[in-house]
Amino acid sequence: MKLLYTSVLLCLWLTLQDNRVAGRLISVNKPNPKDAAAYARWLVSLNSWGVLNTIAADLGGAPFGNVVSFSDGMPGKGAGIPYFYLTALDPTAAYAFKDQRSSLTLSEYPLGTCGKTDPENPTCAKITLTGKLKLVDGSSKEAEFARSALFAKHREMEDWPKNHNFQIFKLEIGDIFLINWFGGPKPLTVDQYLQWNMSKLTFSS
Amino acid sequence: MKLLYTSVLLCLWLTLQDNRVAGRLISVNKPNPKDAAAYARWLVSLNSWGVLNTIAADLGGAPFGNVVSFSDGMPGKGAGIPYFYLTALDPTAAYAFKDQRSSLTLSEYPLGTCGKTDPENPTCAKITLTGKLKLVDGSSKEAEFARSALFAKHREMEDWPKNHNFQIFKLEIGDIFLINWFGGPKPLTVDQYLQWNMSKLTFSS
Repeated sequence: MKLLYTSVLLCLWLTLQDNRVAGRLISVNKPNPKDAAAYARWLVSLNSWGVLNTIAADLGGAPFGNVVSFSDGMPGKGAGIPYFYLTALDPTAAYAFKDQRSSLTLSEYPLGTCGKTDPENPTCAKITLTGKLKLVDGSSKEAEFARSALFAKHREMEDWPKNHNFQIFKLEIGDIFLINWFGGPKPLTVDQYLQWNMSKLTFSS
Repeated sequence: MKLLYTSVLLCLWLTLQDNRVAGRLISVNKPNPKDAAAYARWLVSLNSWGVLNTIAADLGGAPFGNVVSFSDGMPGKGAGIPYFYLTALDPTAAYAFKDQRSSLTLSEYPLGTCGKTDPENPTCAKITLTGKLKLVDGSSKEAEFARSALFAKHREMEDWPKNHNFQIFKLEIGDIFLINWFGGPKPLTVDQYLQWNMSKLTFSS
């Protein structure tokens, strides 16, 4: 019986590990899809990686998506603005230096909260934040905040090679595209998104 | 003892469910990172969704990423060309009708084969296929192949609303950006990618 108990606990632990983003657990209380601001902030706060798009001048101006890690704040305390830790050895940062037009795209699917729904089904949420990808002054207060936010969710970043010259970038959001139910994109302004108070979300622990 | 055995089996089953893409199981034999063509085809074949990027004329020509489902063939038999089932009610198809420049970005991370490695760590692979997003003639042999490929991996697609006018699109690949280890992008031509023989991959069942 003790062995059974141990194996069930182990199973639960393994399942939790699967869903865990470094430093926090997935919230079990996802917002009501009708609350666009809450849902958007929840999606951005809970995801730890996404696809960051820039314009590839050397590929005929094609939109170039790149898998990146990001953070919008300390676990459970995101401010909605995504920060990145990029090196110009990777094309995205190099493209952004030439043309800041950018978007960050995230899916609810990897959070494990879409159930058996297809990733393209509108009830499995997706968000695209469009704006400008900007370098943050490394000696600023904002960079200090961003480094803490990034390293808390991506622990290995702090040890990435110094000679690769990783720098803090942020997406200055100009437009939000959110689908989290049937009926087309949810109306949501950047102000509504940024002003939403994260403390209204309840995180499981 | 029987109860223990049952609970361990249940645990294993739950773990497999987590990693399963509709209709097939994740391959346990991922290719050697040195074999760029094999790795790229494995990544495209095993992923079921990604971020499809187009140019958003109404957002100042910004690159616009969108979460989409795709398929490059029947499970275990992908041909490397990603097919999509899109409606112009969603911006991506509408953008593609005006400007075909596009890219599809995928990560190894959601396959569950990166272990504890960060999604931005170069040993957790990522691929960006850049090219043109083209409508496929719905009555062609190619569309027939694409529909079978898509519906086999995304079972609910077949029942999506007819009045939304979903159509088959494909990405005509012009350039491949693959990172699957340290040392920068792996040299890989479109011909090397397309001509690689999927039967060399072994899938678990």
